[in-house]
Amino acid sequence: MRPDDPAAPAGDDRPRGLSRRAVLLGGGAAAGAAAVAGAAFAGGRATAPDRAAAVEARTYPFAGAHQAGIVTPAQDRLYVAAFDLTTTDRAALVDLLRTWTTMAARLTAGLGAGPLGFDRGSYDAPPDDTGEAADLPPAGLTLTFGFGRSLFVGADGGSDPFGLAGRLPGALAPLPHFPGDALDADRSDGDLVVQACSDDAQVAFHAVRNLSRAAFGTARIRWAQLGYGRTSSTSTAQQTPRNLFGFKDGTANIMAEEATALEDHVWVQAADARADTGTDSAWMTGGTYLTGRRIRMTVETWDRSSLREQERVVGRTKGSGSPLSGGVEHTAPDFERAGSDGTPLIDPASHVRLAHPTSNGGTRMLRRGYTFTDGNDALGRLDAGLYFIAFTRDPRTHYVPVQQALAQQDLMSEYLQHTASAQFAVPPGVPRIAPDGSLVDDSYVGAGLLA
Amino acid sequence: MRPDDPAAPAGDDRPRGLSRRAVLLGGGAAAGAAAVAGAAFAGGRATAPDRAAAVEARTYPFAGAHQAGIVTPAQDRLYVAAFDLTTTDRAALVDLLRTWTTMAARLTAGLGAGPLGFDRGSYDAPPDDTGEAADLPPAGLTLTFGFGRSLFVGADGGSDPFGLAGRLPGALAPLPHFPGDALDADRSDGDLVVQACSDDAQVAFHAVRNLSRAAFGTARIRWAQLGYGRTSSTSTAQQTPRNLFGFKDGTANIMAEEATALEDHVWVQAADARADTGTDSAWMTGGTYLTGRRIRMTVETWDRSSLREQERVVGRTKGSGSPLSGGVEHTAPDFERAGSDGTPLIDPASHVRLAHPTSNGGTRMLRRGYTFTDGNDALGRLDAGLYFIAFTRDPRTHYVPVQQALAQQDLMSEYLQHTASAQFAVPPGVPRIAPDGSLVDDSYVGAGLLA
Repeated sequence: MRPDDPAAPAGDDRPRGLSRRAVLLGGGAAAGAAAVAGAAFAGGRATAPDRAAAVEARTYPFAGAHQAGIVTPAQDRLYVAAFDLTTTDRAALVDLLRTWTTMAARLTAGLGAGPLGFDRGSYDAPPDDTGEAADLPPAGLTLTFGFGRSLFVGADGGSDPFGLAGRLPGALAPLPHFPGDALDADRSDGDLVVQACSDDAQVAFHAVRNLSRAAFGTARIRWAQLGYGRTSSTSTAQQTPRNLFGFKDGTANIMAEEATALEDHVWVQAADARADTGTDSAWMTGGTYLTGRRIRMTVETWDRSSLREQERVVGRTKGSGSPLSGGVEHTAPDFERAGSDGTPLIDPASHVRLAHPTSNGGTRMLRRGYTFTDGNDALGRLDAGLYFIAFTRDPRTHYVPVQQALAQQDLMSEYLQHTASAQFAVPPGVPRIAPDGSLVDDSYVGAGLLA
Repeated sequence: MRPDDPAAPAGDDRPRGLSRRAVLLGGGAAAGAAAVAGAAFAGGRATAPDRAAAVEARTYPFAGAHQAGIVTPAQDRLYVAAFDLTTTDRAALVDLLRTWTTMAARLTAGLGAGPLGFDRGSYDAPPDDTGEAADLPPAGLTLTFGFGRSLFVGADGGSDPFGLAGRLPGALAPLPHFPGDALDADRSDGDLVVQACSDDAQVAFHAVRNLSRAAFGTARIRWAQLGYGRTSSTSTAQQTPRNLFGFKDGTANIMAEEATALEDHVWVQAADARADTGTDSAWMTGGTYLTGRRIRMTVETWDRSSLREQERVVGRTKGSGSPLSGGVEHTAPDFERAGSDGTPLIDPASHVRLAHPTSNGGTRMLRRGYTFTDGNDALGRLDAGLYFIAFTRDPRTHYVPVQQALAQQDLMSEYLQHTASAQFAVPPGVPRIAPDGSLVDDSYVGAGLLA
């Protein structure tokens, strides 16, 4: 009734054609503003000098040589969802990726999912944005896309639904079964993944929901996981957070500032495709691999262990996070140093030793995990833990050997259970995109694979 | 090895005896600092003039005539857990409530759960705090406790495990079955409830986890729910948030500033106990009743409905939230006003009309709901919605009739499913407590019921 009824309410006097958040951000100019990674303002907020406003208005550009959400300083919240395709029409897949690219560029810039907005457009059609983030700032949203092995070889592992089998990277090999794995297939794997990170959980959820909505008829959610607290730093500017065991975690993580380490351990190099036999994975150059593991932490058992036992298991002090061999948090652990009784101060089976690059041929991962809690089990124990995410150049060399050693020897394994697993090829970034999300040169996420 | 080993690390040089967060907050003085509801500083942070730091350091006093977490300006995040007692020993229940009271006073002041801290005490005992919030500010934490009907009459409804049947308030009657209810018993009810609200989800989780730990051997978690975004304002200083339908919600909520409405509709009055027959519920004077409903919102269906339909269902515009009868967000809806075609501008079956006090004999609720998402169902639809929480003086008069009308007539019902239900008697506050959480005059949560 509203558009044509003379008695229609007059309270909503915002100019038509402006999309959600664009108003907040200064009339749509935001998407074109230069966004500086770290602490950029997306528009003309009156409260610009204020730190809280700076954090909330922070945006990270969607376009770039690599996808955002990998070395981007880890935001506070995660919403990650895997999708299965419900079609075998390659053109539909390409259309979806084009749409997702445009939508992701808009959402990460603080615009609505579509150009009309959550409360505009035809009154007899659904709005092109769902609206729950309409009054929220961009909150540092990043959206990171990846392709699962089943996209290349089908859910049965032996078909080729989209004619992509010849482009399967060797690095996207199935993960082996690790000791202690108790994987829920319904929460594992998937054809596609979207990792949404933001400092506001509702902004991250809103993004995945609108991408899911755009996928209706082409793909549907296979599993989704909310992470409420980051457990890793990915920049030297960030403080190391604590995990649910109460310890600082990921102290030795690869940081955005370590350019050489990123090339060595995270970004797929041109030479990597040449090592593949029988398939052509050159499209992954500049990309990376996401390994996701849902790790339940049996906090009730942990909480009944002594401080001595906890520090022995971790290999660090609980207070400052310094290695038990001495120093401060970022002091390199000395695995040889013995105490007065002649035994090493850091237990050889401690987590810090087994996960350390020196125990793993020098390989490193870029970790980006989040703490989750999904209620409780029938015994009243919390179903909580770490949604582990690592980005590596090749999981076969950078994740599998480390996890093999941890699963077999790590003292911490007693307090952990891996309940889901997923792995995705994360292609390089989209080089350029228009401020309103329109594609430039038909460049979309995965164009190198599908074009 | 650490305490007695000469080779022990020297990196952790914080003075012994200081508990977690106390360091952050200025050496333990925080708990004694006068905390002003709204925007108090808990201690001497160097960044005090900064808004973000002010928000993070905000504390709300645990002691008071009423419990905190009811009229307190709704924080951003919720972690709510119901517990079942695993004992029938009344003394153990009293001990638990004493411990919870002390712990809650400490945690809400930004101190550790216990006096030793997460990394102190005997090296051969578990720490008395779990540690994951050690580096986090208080973030406006409130903890609100309540008693379920089963505490008074047993899980079977006919026993009296703690000798409390004679103190059962009439207002804690079982809720009727409402049309469309699809309740999961494992996610409903409970002997005790703890509602933790904070601007940081990890702070809220940490509190419940430590309270759960203290309950080991006496009570265990029956269900727990994370809410990631507030959907209600409880103070006129707060902006009305949007729910997952993209609409502003709870515009007509009772606000902390409405002293008369709070007495009329939220706080139990001395006269209320006199209306009970056969039981003595005078201990509830100054308390309130919490009604919790897990309401799944079928967002996929909603997202495919037209803007016209969405606004008709809600009875407000999606943009500004103004009633369809005109005006702005806080304009009173005019349910009589007709459009040019003679029909009311606000549909008689719209949510705003059916939930409005004028349709419910003038009764009002204080709502304090949170948006949740718990993954997805087997069809790939998001399991997301509203964890509805309302505080009322008597659910029989203030909640049941409203929900009866909504369940039968509300156009919105088509898009909702109530999947869990719980109701608790929330006793009045603890009048006084020492800065370190020690009880004063043996006053603890529920002392009026149990002492």
